[in-house]
Amino acid sequence: MFTRHPLNPLITPASVRASRPDYEVIGTFNAGATIYKGETLLLVRVAERPLKTDPDWIFCPYIGADGELTLRSVRRDDPDYDTHDPRLVKHHPTKAVYLTSLSHVRLARSTDGVHFTTADQPWLNTDSPFEAYGVEDARITRVDDMYWINYTAVSSHGIATGLVSTRDFVTVERRGIMFPPSNRDVVIFPQKVNGLYVCYHRPMPGEFGQLSMWMATSPDLIHWGNHQLVLEGNADGWDSGRIGGGAPPILTDAGWLSIYHAADQNNRYCLGAFLTPHDDPSTILYRSKTPIFEPEASYETSGFFGNVVFTCGLTVQGDMLRLYYGASDETIALAEAPVQAIIDHLKAGN
Amino acid sequence: MFTRHPLNPLITPASVRASRPDYEVIGTFNAGATIYKGETLLLVRVAERPLKTDPDWIFCPYIGADGELTLRSVRRDDPDYDTHDPRLVKHHPTKAVYLTSLSHVRLARSTDGVHFTTADQPWLNTDSPFEAYGVEDARITRVDDMYWINYTAVSSHGIATGLVSTRDFVTVERRGIMFPPSNRDVVIFPQKVNGLYVCYHRPMPGEFGQLSMWMATSPDLIHWGNHQLVLEGNADGWDSGRIGGGAPPILTDAGWLSIYHAADQNNRYCLGAFLTPHDDPSTILYRSKTPIFEPEASYETSGFFGNVVFTCGLTVQGDMLRLYYGASDETIALAEAPVQAIIDHLKAGN
Repeated sequence: MFTRHPLNPLITPASVRASRPDYEVIGTFNAGATIYKGETLLLVRVAERPLKTDPDWIFCPYIGADGELTLRSVRRDDPDYDTHDPRLVKHHPTKAVYLTSLSHVRLARSTDGVHFTTADQPWLNTDSPFEAYGVEDARITRVDDMYWINYTAVSSHGIATGLVSTRDFVTVERRGIMFPPSNRDVVIFPQKVNGLYVCYHRPMPGEFGQLSMWMATSPDLIHWGNHQLVLEGNADGWDSGRIGGGAPPILTDAGWLSIYHAADQNNRYCLGAFLTPHDDPSTILYRSKTPIFEPEASYETSGFFGNVVFTCGLTVQGDMLRLYYGASDETIALAEAPVQAIIDHLKAGN
Repeated sequence: MFTRHPLNPLITPASVRASRPDYEVIGTFNAGATIYKGETLLLVRVAERPLKTDPDWIFCPYIGADGELTLRSVRRDDPDYDTHDPRLVKHHPTKAVYLTSLSHVRLARSTDGVHFTTADQPWLNTDSPFEAYGVEDARITRVDDMYWINYTAVSSHGIATGLVSTRDFVTVERRGIMFPPSNRDVVIFPQKVNGLYVCYHRPMPGEFGQLSMWMATSPDLIHWGNHQLVLEGNADGWDSGRIGGGAPPILTDAGWLSIYHAADQNNRYCLGAFLTPHDDPSTILYRSKTPIFEPEASYETSGFFGNVVFTCGLTVQGDMLRLYYGASDETIALAEAPVQAIIDHLKAGN
């Protein structure tokens, strides 16, 4: 159904400058996408880590209480730490988690949706105690002439969802914390349904529950309520580990089409799709039984964190859906499919 | 500062009938409180477990997918389970948690605030998949002529906060899930501040963060946003384990007075207090350095889960604050203090 672009991956760490001379870019991935004044804009997650390396140590960058970039040093052989996941270390005694890189969000623009120029500096940088470990995974939703961007804010206070808005991608207004910890993978609908704005979100209920997709409504995009469970993973198979929002839903003749992500117990991330009625985004009409897109290309199966395809945004050009996705938590790639082909696939019960 | 009532505990499991013949009441605790038509009303958490016992087995009651009361049987010596906490068992392979009792909420009424008559049947019973493991810890806030009751909804989907409203404590309107998992210990303010309703809530950020008190605002008590961190525990001492809302805040000349709970690493639960300005409930003016109330009486230090005092509600009669609190997760007790004495205590820097 999807065709990978021959120039994939479109944005790589090597193609982007570090924001500081003493840091290197190790990931450019998980980008929100929109069309603005004829250009394709991506809000790219840029993950950086200090150039300083030592085979015996892991350095975890974060913004300290003084607002300064700080390094937490962890010995690789320290028995108090679990260091097997390249993305993070866990401190057993306190159960605290620290990230091995610090992410910010950068603007990349393109006239053809394929060749992107990425800015050298952050578009959205860490700006509060709730973002001390970074800002990640921006999603863009246009509502009338305003673009709303939700993102993941990570800190010692937990994993929360932050919100900003812009009309021109130059002036950015911060809108505070949209969902308190632990909640991420939020996708906002582009228009009201039954008089209220709608989003899907992904609470993380800890040991009491699974990682599933929920829905909420809002009168103003700031205050959210009426929380309902929408989509759960299955006990076995490709979505047994977690399930959450991908790109913001798009309106089609067949209903709201959502592309979401799921992972299995081995952290293999794939994409699925579902359709809901126009007037009820909490009811699943059709849902993909198997992934509609999964890691197959070399840049998807290997990389910083291999076997990951993960989308935060797409655009629709004519009848074609252009899916921008993070590959292996390292690069941004593009795959295209006719919108109708995805709908037909779902309606056929696949 | 507080004087325990000589008739404590006021409500005990022995004084209340089980809602079913094959169950026994093991806890009557954590009650929301209000004055309605001259009577003191408590919404009491009633915890029940099956009469069926077996020294080798633990039976965990829950509402099954078919809506029927069901028992999950766990062998005490099953190495897959952690059974040391009397309140719950943990299944190591799946990390799932099951409760050893099923709670509902019952109405108790009193003309003097001391002698209570507790109804024989639930006032609020489990009513959705989100309440399959019970409804707990109701808090009552009167806003104009409506009483809003938030409560903890526990299920395999996580620990969430539910909301209902009533004008007469007879007809109850369900208002859905106020905060998705994991979030509990919500207290709603009785009036708007700066044009918006306000609550404190307690997200549970898992291994990424601590259990702290947050604030949110709402235009309508249904949709909540503008989440801010308000109060954190200290690394050592009585509030090092967790911290969360207690009774809904009360308006005093000195500002909003909040009685909250905190526990240390040993799960010893005490109560603290803080004051905020009338126009800014996110700013702490004064905060108790040490507990204002802690487990000392025998019914507070021993019981189903000893060393716990925990409040969900209070009333103010003249100048006196009447604090209703759960003791040892088993009984309801009453302690009284002049409101001014608490304020003086806080202002003196204690």
